[in-house]
Amino acid sequence: MDERIRELMEKAERPGRIAPELHKKYGGKIEIVPKCSIKSLSDFDIWYTPGVAAVSKIIAQDPDKSFDYTNRWNTVGVVTDGSRVLGLGNIGPEASLPVMEGKALLFKYLGGVDAFPIALDARDPDRFLDILKALEPSLGGINLEDIEKPKCFYILEEARKRLEIPVWHDDQQGTATVILAGLINALKIVGKKLSQVKIVLFGVGAANTKAAEVLILAGADPKKMYLVDSKGVIHAGRKDILEVEKNPWKYRLAEITNPEHIEKVEGAFRGADVVIGASKPGPDTIKKEWIRLMAEDPIVFATANPIPEIWPWDAKEAGARIVATGRSDFPNQINNSLGFPGIFRGVLDVRAKTVTDEMCIAAAQEIAKFAEERGIHEEYIVPRMDEWEVYPRMAVAAALQSIKQGVAREKPSRQELWERATSMITRSRKVYEAILKAGLIG
Amino acid sequence: MDERIRELMEKAERPGRIAPELHKKYGGKIEIVPKCSIKSLSDFDIWYTPGVAAVSKIIAQDPDKSFDYTNRWNTVGVVTDGSRVLGLGNIGPEASLPVMEGKALLFKYLGGVDAFPIALDARDPDRFLDILKALEPSLGGINLEDIEKPKCFYILEEARKRLEIPVWHDDQQGTATVILAGLINALKIVGKKLSQVKIVLFGVGAANTKAAEVLILAGADPKKMYLVDSKGVIHAGRKDILEVEKNPWKYRLAEITNPEHIEKVEGAFRGADVVIGASKPGPDTIKKEWIRLMAEDPIVFATANPIPEIWPWDAKEAGARIVATGRSDFPNQINNSLGFPGIFRGVLDVRAKTVTDEMCIAAAQEIAKFAEERGIHEEYIVPRMDEWEVYPRMAVAAALQSIKQGVAREKPSRQELWERATSMITRSRKVYEAILKAGLIG
Repeated sequence: MDERIRELMEKAERPGRIAPELHKKYGGKIEIVPKCSIKSLSDFDIWYTPGVAAVSKIIAQDPDKSFDYTNRWNTVGVVTDGSRVLGLGNIGPEASLPVMEGKALLFKYLGGVDAFPIALDARDPDRFLDILKALEPSLGGINLEDIEKPKCFYILEEARKRLEIPVWHDDQQGTATVILAGLINALKIVGKKLSQVKIVLFGVGAANTKAAEVLILAGADPKKMYLVDSKGVIHAGRKDILEVEKNPWKYRLAEITNPEHIEKVEGAFRGADVVIGASKPGPDTIKKEWIRLMAEDPIVFATANPIPEIWPWDAKEAGARIVATGRSDFPNQINNSLGFPGIFRGVLDVRAKTVTDEMCIAAAQEIAKFAEERGIHEEYIVPRMDEWEVYPRMAVAAALQSIKQGVAREKPSRQELWERATSMITRSRKVYEAILKAGLIG
Repeated sequence: MDERIRELMEKAERPGRIAPELHKKYGGKIEIVPKCSIKSLSDFDIWYTPGVAAVSKIIAQDPDKSFDYTNRWNTVGVVTDGSRVLGLGNIGPEASLPVMEGKALLFKYLGGVDAFPIALDARDPDRFLDILKALEPSLGGINLEDIEKPKCFYILEEARKRLEIPVWHDDQQGTATVILAGLINALKIVGKKLSQVKIVLFGVGAANTKAAEVLILAGADPKKMYLVDSKGVIHAGRKDILEVEKNPWKYRLAEITNPEHIEKVEGAFRGADVVIGASKPGPDTIKKEWIRLMAEDPIVFATANPIPEIWPWDAKEAGARIVATGRSDFPNQINNSLGFPGIFRGVLDVRAKTVTDEMCIAAAQEIAKFAEERGIHEEYIVPRMDEWEVYPRMAVAAALQSIKQGVAREKPSRQELWERATSMITRSRKVYEAILKAGLIG
């Protein structure tokens, strides 16, 4: 087994070894190109002055018309303050820029969305919110990224109130959506019901805090949920969460979960049906002996990157029936990239004013359904990222839910939504291929 | 003549008539595309997590490395508060968006620069400056646009102090650069010297305020300069400029120009060699009888759009030897688009920390030289926009001046600069053509 682990560690480290050289070679990952017809320079009389004035006049009468006449309808800001970049902590806005650019790349390639990286030198949450509000007129949506807790909860909550465009924190809603999708199918396989299972959420950061909220909204019973942080299992008696961590979002969960006030991790795992790890890289952050304490057919999600909280074979050896990780080289990859490109495609296509947790759930259900149609089993609970058709499917689900909740500016039909999403996503790959074929990507 | 004017008015109005429909058809003018190699989805392990973490770590050690490893080195924010959009006034950030997008289009097509539109809901100048500072880590430069005076002067001055990337207000430096270029050649044709001519600046907005400063820095004699606003010729006695307009930048010019305290427009025009109109659309904002008061071989720049302050034939009839306008359908187009794409290409290619007025002058001199080499005459004082070679030439001139002034982060040779600028600009058009050829632009 040692050789295998060495190989996997090696494999996990390889992208990081070659990434700097490749980033330097290409000098970044995205560029801006014209998408309108330019037959001669005189066309600039239409696209710029004097012609553009007529367009500005129309929008001045009705600012929402900016969605019709500019690229705002397809534009997302990928915004961070660089306060919690990947697992690297508070390394600042410049250092977060390659991550934000990578996200913008995925947005376009997988979702046909034009996203630009905005790494802000703005640590104070109210100043950050003020800037989000100021940026709103240029954007159709905002994808928050890599913001430390508990600030990220406050920012998301307030931004959703103050802005009339969808605001999404991918480390929260994105992860929660994909976790829920995986869990729906895993439960089908083991024949259990979400409302009845005992769930351990291992790690109480941005991801699992939102995952807990979304799971509850989707039907999970908070009284059967146990959230584990570095001090043990949280419960209403844990005043340090409010007083030291100053994290009311986490405390709200402490109040409604773990009614027995269990303190030790072992107590949480005993008889649990599901454990969802979104904590720190392993291996052995989640221990084999804890898995052994779980109920029949344990479901283990160990999503830490690049090394899962427990190696899949260790989890299996300890009795896990279904194991998911964040890695692409293992089965069942629980990865945000399965979520945001499709969901944003959907919210942009209806010009939604917000993205609700219900829209996340609708998208998660559609992801699950997509995999189910292809035949789910222990090693296939969510689609793989290369199953492109899942993105327009999710887009439609999120969009329809947005229409249902009355937060959509436009109300296309299901068929129109599907065609729009499919054509946008297909086109974005064709554009890339055209540039590549012309020999313009080194 | 009536028929001709009708035709020209019609021609001036045509772009505005067709612009809304075309903007709607394309749903905006720019999009974001990948520029790095994507052979399979596993490449995202390099461009995004986990590989990108290694890149973030490097930048965390030295934030300036963000210029090496991300697209920051080629990224400009086109930023406005929508407070003075074209000639339309304070119509708000959403309504300014089509203009900012148009600018981004020109940036890429003419200068190979990736520019994204940022229309801010931020009217207070200090809040606006605070946001510019917060945006700095994502950007290689900032192009300010369509901000009302006198706020725009304060914002430019402060931003240049506070930010370590080039900040440029195109309505100020951009216009001033192209005016200076045209004037250099016009004076060669009439055989006069910049230091000796009497200059009337007609209109004292963003453009002519900066033009006056730049002309003085380039050698014009402020004692022979006369700035005309809506109340007459400005001079040190005009306390209303400070007290009512609260515009110390304009007053600074009032103090050093017009030593005779001339008040009437006619007095300014009498014996003047040059008039530079950057005021409001004509015709007849500048009157024929004023041109008749000028010295021998009058030079008349009437840059208001879409109708110049005086029709060229009227100016000629009144004695003008050289006439320039802002229109592409007349000879001698004085247009910002001749400036910013080349200058930004240059400042980005040396990762300049600022863009100085001396860099503007160097670029203006190069524009003038470029036209001179092709043979200047009354109807050809500046290059036409389709003479592409002018952009890399200006880029080199601005970059070399930046190195000379010690504000460049990099110091490539003249030859390297020329090759870099040429290949960037050429590539950007090739990318567009590849997308067009693939049938992906409707």
